[in-house]
Amino acid sequence: MMSMKAVKLLLLLCVICFSVVSKTVICEPPPTCPANLDDGECGSEDSGEWEGEFFPGIPKIKYEGPTSKNPLAYKWYNPNEEILGKNMKDWLRFSVAFWHTFRGTGGDPFGAPTKMWPWEDGTNSLAMAKRRMRANFEFLEKLGVDRWCFHDRDIAPDAETLEETNANLDEVVALAKELQGTKIRPLWGTAQLFMHPRYMHGGATSPEIGVYAYAAAQVKKAIEVTHYLGGENYVFWGGREGYQTLLNTDMERELDHMARFFEAAVAYKKKIGFNGTLLIEPKPQEPTKHQYDWDAATSANFLRKYGLIGEFKLNIECNHATLSGHSCHHELETARINGLLGNVDANTGDPQVGWDTDQFLMDVNEATLVMLSVIRNGGLSPGGFNFDAKLRRESTDVEDIFIAHIGGMDTLARGLRNAAKLIEDGSLDKLVRKRYQSFDTELGAQIEAGKVDFELLEKKAMEWGEPEVPSGKQELAEMLFQSAM
Amino acid sequence: MMSMKAVKLLLLLCVICFSVVSKTVICEPPPTCPANLDDGECGSEDSGEWEGEFFPGIPKIKYEGPTSKNPLAYKWYNPNEEILGKNMKDWLRFSVAFWHTFRGTGGDPFGAPTKMWPWEDGTNSLAMAKRRMRANFEFLEKLGVDRWCFHDRDIAPDAETLEETNANLDEVVALAKELQGTKIRPLWGTAQLFMHPRYMHGGATSPEIGVYAYAAAQVKKAIEVTHYLGGENYVFWGGREGYQTLLNTDMERELDHMARFFEAAVAYKKKIGFNGTLLIEPKPQEPTKHQYDWDAATSANFLRKYGLIGEFKLNIECNHATLSGHSCHHELETARINGLLGNVDANTGDPQVGWDTDQFLMDVNEATLVMLSVIRNGGLSPGGFNFDAKLRRESTDVEDIFIAHIGGMDTLARGLRNAAKLIEDGSLDKLVRKRYQSFDTELGAQIEAGKVDFELLEKKAMEWGEPEVPSGKQELAEMLFQSAM
Amino acid sequence: MMSMKAVKLLLLLCVICFSVVSKTVICEPPPTCPANLDDGECGSEDSGEWEGEFFPGIPKIKYEGPTSKNPLAYKWYNPNEEILGKNMKDWLRFSVAFWHTFRGTGGDPFGAPTKMWPWEDGTNSLAMAKRRMRANFEFLEKLGVDRWCFHDRDIAPDAETLEETNANLDEVVALAKELQGTKIRPLWGTAQLFMHPRYMHGGATSPEIGVYAYAAAQVKKAIEVTHYLGGENYVFWGGREGYQTLLNTDMERELDHMARFFEAAVAYKKKIGFNGTLLIEPKPQEPTKHQYDWDAATSANFLRKYGLIGEFKLNIECNHATLSGHSCHHELETARINGLLGNVDANTGDPQVGWDTDQFLMDVNEATLVMLSVIRNGGLSPGGFNFDAKLRRESTDVEDIFIAHIGGMDTLARGLRNAAKLIEDGSLDKLVRKRYQSFDTELGAQIEAGKVDFELLEKKAMEWGEPEVPSGKQELAEMLFQSAM
Amino acid sequence: MMSMKAVKLLLLLCVICFSVVSKTVICEPPPTCPANLDDGECGSEDSGEWEGEFFPGIPKIKYEGPTSKNPLAYKWYNPNEEILGKNMKDWLRFSVAFWHTFRGTGGDPFGAPTKMWPWEDGTNSLAMAKRRMRANFEFLEKLGVDRWCFHDRDIAPDAETLEETNANLDEVVALAKELQGTKIRPLWGTAQLFMHPRYMHGGATSPEIGVYAYAAAQVKKAIEVTHYLGGENYVFWGGREGYQTLLNTDMERELDHMARFFEAAVAYKKKIGFNGTLLIEPKPQEPTKHQYDWDAATSANFLRKYGLIGEFKLNIECNHATLSGHSCHHELETARINGLLGNVDANTGDPQVGWDTDQFLMDVNEATLVMLSVIRNGGLSPGGFNFDAKLRRESTDVEDIFIAHIGGMDTLARGLRNAAKLIEDGSLDKLVRKRYQSFDTELGAQIEAGKVDFELLEKKAMEWGEPEVPSGKQELAEMLFQSAM
Repeated sequence: MMSMKAVKLLLLLCVICFSVVSKTVICEPPPTCPANLDDGECGSEDSGEWEGEFFPGIPKIKYEGPTSKNPLAYKWYNPNEEILGKNMKDWLRFSVAFWHTFRGTGGDPFGAPTKMWPWEDGTNSLAMAKRRMRANFEFLEKLGVDRWCFHDRDIAPDAETLEETNANLDEVVALAKELQGTKIRPLWGTAQLFMHPRYMHGGATSPEIGVYAYAAAQVKKAIEVTHYLGGENYVFWGGREGYQTLLNTDMERELDHMARFFEAAVAYKKKIGFNGTLLIEPKPQEPTKHQYDWDAATSANFLRKYGLIGEFKLNIECNHATLSGHSCHHELETARINGLLGNVDANTGDPQVGWDTDQFLMDVNEATLVMLSVIRNGGLSPGGFNFDAKLRRESTDVEDIFIAHIGGMDTLARGLRNAAKLIEDGSLDKLVRKRYQSFDTELGAQIEAGKVDFELLEKKAMEWGEPEVPSGKQELAEMLFQSAM
Repeated sequence: MMSMKAVKLLLLLCVICFSVVSKTVICEPPPTCPANLDDGECGSEDSGEWEGEFFPGIPKIKYEGPTSKNPLAYKWYNPNEEILGKNMKDWLRFSVAFWHTFRGTGGDPFGAPTKMWPWEDGTNSLAMAKRRMRANFEFLEKLGVDRWCFHDRDIAPDAETLEETNANLDEVVALAKELQGTKIRPLWGTAQLFMHPRYMHGGATSPEIGVYAYAAAQVKKAIEVTHYLGGENYVFWGGREGYQTLLNTDMERELDHMARFFEAAVAYKKKIGFNGTLLIEPKPQEPTKHQYDWDAATSANFLRKYGLIGEFKLNIECNHATLSGHSCHHELETARINGLLGNVDANTGDPQVGWDTDQFLMDVNEATLVMLSVIRNGGLSPGGFNFDAKLRRESTDVEDIFIAHIGGMDTLARGLRNAAKLIEDGSLDKLVRKRYQSFDTELGAQIEAGKVDFELLEKKAMEWGEPEVPSGKQELAEMLFQSAM
Repeated sequence: MMSMKAVKLLLLLCVICFSVVSKTVICEPPPTCPANLDDGECGSEDSGEWEGEFFPGIPKIKYEGPTSKNPLAYKWYNPNEEILGKNMKDWLRFSVAFWHTFRGTGGDPFGAPTKMWPWEDGTNSLAMAKRRMRANFEFLEKLGVDRWCFHDRDIAPDAETLEETNANLDEVVALAKELQGTKIRPLWGTAQLFMHPRYMHGGATSPEIGVYAYAAAQVKKAIEVTHYLGGENYVFWGGREGYQTLLNTDMERELDHMARFFEAAVAYKKKIGFNGTLLIEPKPQEPTKHQYDWDAATSANFLRKYGLIGEFKLNIECNHATLSGHSCHHELETARINGLLGNVDANTGDPQVGWDTDQFLMDVNEATLVMLSVIRNGGLSPGGFNFDAKLRRESTDVEDIFIAHIGGMDTLARGLRNAAKLIEDGSLDKLVRKRYQSFDTELGAQIEAGKVDFELLEKKAMEWGEPEVPSGKQELAEMLFQSAM
Repeated sequence: MMSMKAVKLLLLLCVICFSVVSKTVICEPPPTCPANLDDGECGSEDSGEWEGEFFPGIPKIKYEGPTSKNPLAYKWYNPNEEILGKNMKDWLRFSVAFWHTFRGTGGDPFGAPTKMWPWEDGTNSLAMAKRRMRANFEFLEKLGVDRWCFHDRDIAPDAETLEETNANLDEVVALAKELQGTKIRPLWGTAQLFMHPRYMHGGATSPEIGVYAYAAAQVKKAIEVTHYLGGENYVFWGGREGYQTLLNTDMERELDHMARFFEAAVAYKKKIGFNGTLLIEPKPQEPTKHQYDWDAATSANFLRKYGLIGEFKLNIECNHATLSGHSCHHELETARINGLLGNVDANTGDPQVGWDTDQFLMDVNEATLVMLSVIRNGGLSPGGFNFDAKLRRESTDVEDIFIAHIGGMDTLARGLRNAAKLIEDGSLDKLVRKRYQSFDTELGAQIEAGKVDFELLEKKAMEWGEPEVPSGKQELAEMLFQSAM
């Protein structure tokens, strides 16, 4: 017979299991204690204290240049080196994603967790949340990164009531505020509206009014704490705002609800004086069959339809881009020319795989294209590059966390260097401008000003006869692009 | 040594080859003469005369009901039968696509033409164009369909100058007008801006101002002839309005040009008193890597951004829908709830194939979903169902043209019957309405009116505690849906 | 301070959490206790006793015919009705998948469990395993299905050592044996070699010899218990037998190991007198980037290369088929003509979705194609149709489990009826046979016997001149097929 | 009224149009005469004579090293530079594909030809075929490439009978033989069995025995001329050997026919003493819905099933690989470890596009992976790298042909240099070997020798307890790989 205390503990564990918060990693048993931990340490409720470093063998990561063979050094990212008139760190504004890096467990739809980080005690307790937050700041410090991103539920555990959950959150946030010091700030915060079963039909688009209200309360609080921590942006990723089948869905009504929800968020943000940018993160599907924020153009259409176009920007994720059938570069450019490019979730997918793999971007070609868009956008500030990327399930060494981030940062840094080289060389830009030069004329200007009607155009067409159409020079453009790699 | 006359003939053939117009079938050698045609008949310039019927063995297609085994009879399409208060023919408003049915040759990227229709003489002459037009009207008559769709260049041959080309078009259009009589009208017309090499970089989005002007002149004329023939709609399919690589493309400038072009089209349409609907036909890609009218939402965003939203509707094609990663039903519903559902290009793709196969829709499940959207839209009028579908390359019997259209029409008719059954039964609708009933309350109405702020919602969330979230009943919805099949 | 007992309990929970076994549902916290369960009942270790029925409101499911509107009745599946000389139940040989139906929790990569079945007590205890097994047999009884499938780890919990784990398994298997009575048998059993972290790099293809040995021990035991329970087949699904990146993989060595493993399984099966069929279940990817048993042809190549071709058959799953770029019908036919069609995992995917959705097949067209292959194969016996399908995450009513299975069974039953109609009508078969009639000649027979060389063929080609090539009649074939729906 | 002579000419043109041979470009009107050609030159039947150079402005392409900005120079390909003990040219064995480079017209399913090469006269005459062949050899000479590949029908025109067609072929082949001199040879030849309408249902798998015989005669001749020209390989690409729908197809019978056909080809090859390698070129689909040689594993299964495994190797094409859902590297490795890697069709696709784009490979990452496989294979000889790649439709300058090939050659050369760097560095290989070290033991050796049964493995598993499973180090492997770029 179990003691009542044990029963309650078990029940508590049931509850807190729900709050294992991770954007991409399923609610799993809390990462279990490594086999070699003795009883006294593992699973202890008062485990907030942790002696010494979390990453004892890992030094502060330094720039050693391209010839270095040290996996724990930057070969391309030199934060204070100037590129195109700005320091690399100001172009790149890197951020660590708390959920992947500190709540990712390695679970997948067919597999249990694999990560057994030494500082984890197997619980989802408040004490553990605090210890984990300390690990986060040591990681940021050693990596030399000044920004972090979080979901409300991955930094602090769910409790039985919303009030208690908020209290948990406040306690962890207070610690984070202290640990941030003067240098570190959230790139953005967000509310996690997809993990808990209550959100199974959506948050803002749930058919249940109670869920809608709950989601609103959660976003309200998440905006507040983001503001309190000095966050520069706030993100909406509507992982459950979509449908599994149109057969049971009133899509029009759900979209209306989503618009009302966003309007209320805008009003509240202004009311409390939060000046951060609100960002929508498009994704086509997964976990839903269709997510309402399918891609940049779909999100832009939604914002325009409901008169929200000036109030939001977009957070473009490369893996989401390719899942929606576009290149990452396309999504960045679409956001940019709609005036909506606000942030990049820096990751990549596998081109032969139909789900979100959230890998660290290691392809320099891709990174160069990304940086070309960012430079054209004049940078991303107040947005930046958030590593919404996770270790492979099979990567289970603590050093792998560092190696992955260093690889991702170096790749984007190399992309920045290459993009700058391309821009300074100018050949590719010149090739593009030249293609459109026939519009750099008086008639071209009039057409672009909307002053030329079909009658005049027909007259010109007949006057001119068959137009000359030059080569598009795609292979040359590719050769010029590759020459910068 | 060739005579100069023969040389000129050859050159002419070179020129007219370019004008083999087909939306989905490449410019190929004109369908060659069947092997058994004697010299005198094949290739003769004055071949406009054709004795007797084009489809001598084929009777007028009649409704024989579901038990009929006659492939040349309707089993489900009974034009004057009333369904949900309207005749079937008024719900369905079928149209035959001239390009597939009369200009489709069976060529594909790896294969030569396979269709050797008896009435074709191997030329793209004006006389042949007229003979073909007569075949079209006999086909419409025998099929019992009152609408047809066309591209300017598939009904009349290109000539050396735009003026001469327009004259060719006028001559064929005059014949079509006469053959239409009082009953038959174009569902829509369109300009073919993708086949000719001059359009290789686009029409409205070509970097060459001369091509932009030429495209405008062509659209101007195509709107005129559509209007003259009593057409009810006019379609823009921007097959080349997109890019092959962003490396050589100024996407922003191209989109601006496209908007100017559309504005000019709207102005011209109004000027000449054409009241037909302008329709944009979304497609994600092919032949371009990215087409600017990617899907319904992307097209809607474009229309909103440039203030064109009230002037256009969409022509949704099922095969294009699935190529863009959506179900056809999704695209129809997205168009509908944006107020943009104007026409359906009735076809289907192969779910495992990544290009436009333009097959006749033969799947009753899919057709039922299509008809559910159309019924919710109150029908499509003045739009309709255009069979933008082609015979398989390997289907080379004349009767196959009839079998394919009959199959497609019967499938949509069966879809209409099933959709009506579902609506009359009401169980599925009830399941959906019930899911949202918590918003059919006072607070729900206030939320939907945009009057509820985050503070009130948070208060409610705390008051209510954990919300109850009922089952989504997807399997039941699927069972109810299937029961109508 | 926690008591040592509680600490150990917690550790135990950590351990057993790992063993939440489900083929498609991640290791999650055991389905938590519904909110309204009182402490005494929830989480109790001695909870094996359960009063009364598990499904109290659900009657035994009966055949009521196509006009019935009762969601808890068969409209098309009439087990003892004869179709093409065999009872429906003998053609269909349905089986319930224990993992989806009794261990599926509704978790997904972004969401916590949603299923709170009343009989679950929130633990993964042995007692709970037994209670669940009783629920399984009541379910089979009420559904009227005589077969079930299981993974070793989803019917009994993992323990600290392999010996203890095997003891757990024996205890549950003994109960299952008793509950099976004389009528019910496993269609197949299998070992779960993908959920536990030890298998993160594979089982038979893990680079770790210790894992290889562990996997062998687990398969050995799983074959034994399948044999003991009277199972008719044994399945290998190599969910982790593949790679995430070729950069760290020696594919050749891994494939060699897999072959050695299969050889040993064959030897052991024979040694213990197990006559069931060994089945490989192809799947292209997920969770791996590449699974070695990609599709039917890939699996066949493996079997042939390593001389295992006579010892295995294939278990074809429709959702896996479409993920590999094939239609389900294609995979069934490929298996069949390689002599390898042994079993069907009856489910379906979403055609626009790039991961395994494991939905219940509700599409009658698809079911008809499946049944055409099965009939051509002379049935599947000793294989059958296993419902490797799961409720949508949002389907949370107990009755949904029944509705989903009834829908799936009725759909295949309808497919069987349609396939029989097609075969009895004969028109489609005739169309196919006629296409090949030129080979039903003397020369054709010689060619098919491998007796005709290129010289003779060239002589014939020159003699015959240009061959006549008739229409492929695809649209007619589609019309004939649809007429049976 | 046309003269009879002109009528016949027209008819001839009809006929020869069919024989516009191109692997990826549809039968189109022969590239028309450029607008500025005067009548006397264009379309002349006796146009075989061509004064001076075909590429007058283009010099012989030289290696200038990575700092060169000259688009008409090699920056990475230095033919006689030694890499890993072999000259670059011997590793790479480049070949130009006659069909893309000299018969590609820029047509696509929605567009007419765009290439108006100056040497084309608008006909498909024998004289034109010879002139084109001269252009080919000047191109090879200037590019510095010693190998070329061809389809029978793209080098010489079809005629009315097979005998006459063969005579045409002989005439062009004689010229090619002369132009080849002592240095240049075909990498491979092949028969074009997909363009002509007679092959619409397949060649070896056509249901028509007459087509089967015709295909055999054509392959017989193509092997003969390949042998005569000193070709080192012979390729089968079964573009039409597959199905459009299983509803009208007897897949089993078709596969049997294909096997008989291949057996006869093997016998004939041996009979005439042709020692070149026979190569199958896998492709999943397009133009068929399913091609029987879907991918490397499918082709291997076919070869094994029919006892042809020792007689063929595979020609792996990167664009085909990705269309089949695999990375190019995967297909190369699969071919390699099945002992089947014989040749590479060097191109690439667009990762977001579902059809064969046949682009020149310009991605250095991809090229490095390709070269890793080739080096592991000990090179490809007697196979090589054939540029089965075509200019974009919009690339219409003569110099684009050179730029594209130079880009493709430089990219593979850079891939070779990077792969060599990786191999010489050794870190990545070491990482891989280390992962498998537990099998480099006595027990490991016994397992790999097939001497260990399940009982022993179970004993070991129990002895050893829970195995340690190290990190897979994927991110480190990616970092090491990128460091060589």
